[in-house]
Amino acid sequence: MDNAASRPAWSLHPQLARDTELVGDLALARVLAMNDANFPWVILVPRRAGTVELIDLDEVARGELMAEIAQVSTALKNLTRCDKLNVAAIGNVVPQLHVHVVARRTSDAAWPKPVWGAVPAKPYAAGELDTFVAALRRAIGII
Amino acid sequence: MDNAASRPAWSLHPQLARDTELVGDLALARVLAMNDANFPWVILVPRRAGTVELIDLDEVARGELMAEIAQVSTALKNLTRCDKLNVAAIGNVVPQLHVHVVARRTSDAAWPKPVWGAVPAKPYAAGELDTFVAALRRAIGII
Repeated sequence: MDNAASRPAWSLHPQLARDTELVGDLALARVLAMNDANFPWVILVPRRAGTVELIDLDEVARGELMAEIAQVSTALKNLTRCDKLNVAAIGNVVPQLHVHVVARRTSDAAWPKPVWGAVPAKPYAAGELDTFVAALRRAIGII
Repeated sequence: MDNAASRPAWSLHPQLARDTELVGDLALARVLAMNDANFPWVILVPRRAGTVELIDLDEVARGELMAEIAQVSTALKNLTRCDKLNVAAIGNVVPQLHVHVVARRTSDAAWPKPVWGAVPAKPYAAGELDTFVAALRRAIGII
């Protein structure tokens, strides 16, 4: 049963909105592209108000989230031919539940360290973020 | 259908074995406690040979893994009354797929940074790791 109509309104945390470009919505999560040219970096944000931890989602939503993580991971891997994917829900700074899916290369600016706080974000040059977002939409299958 | 008998043999990566103490096995994953007194830190390792990425698991196994992440997360949160959980599959150093579930406090040695590489590991004092492992077994329901 879809109780969407009875759920409290969700809105994207302002810091996530500032740092990213919108890719689109899957059934559960909003998909965002980080404006950091150091790493091809996608963020999934379940559109459920007040959610901080994975375990704040019910079992069905957790299953949906895992399926969407896999969908985005496959798309990002196909797009970038990366050496490794890093998938993480941390949220020490921005409490709204969000899952990072980052394509890593052994030659990237932070390898082998995790990306968080490793190097300053490097905004994409004009047009490049739009190109990445368009490629992500095609690869994920978001119209 | 359980194809366990036809699967290649799995064994724990030696570096994970060195850094942790065995908690026990859930249906899919081996559960380990990191020997780092800085953070209550659990690792889940799906017992599937050759698995590097989440998307190397089939859809059923990914669902099982999410359920086991939730089970361990709930246990760790109940046990520690932590301020935040950090959940991550990184694997830039140890390629065997493993998922970190870390209980964070706003007063811990790395907050708000992620734990990986933030501060040197601090081995537990004699007996303390055993106490943590025993408490984890009870909280997770591993006999």
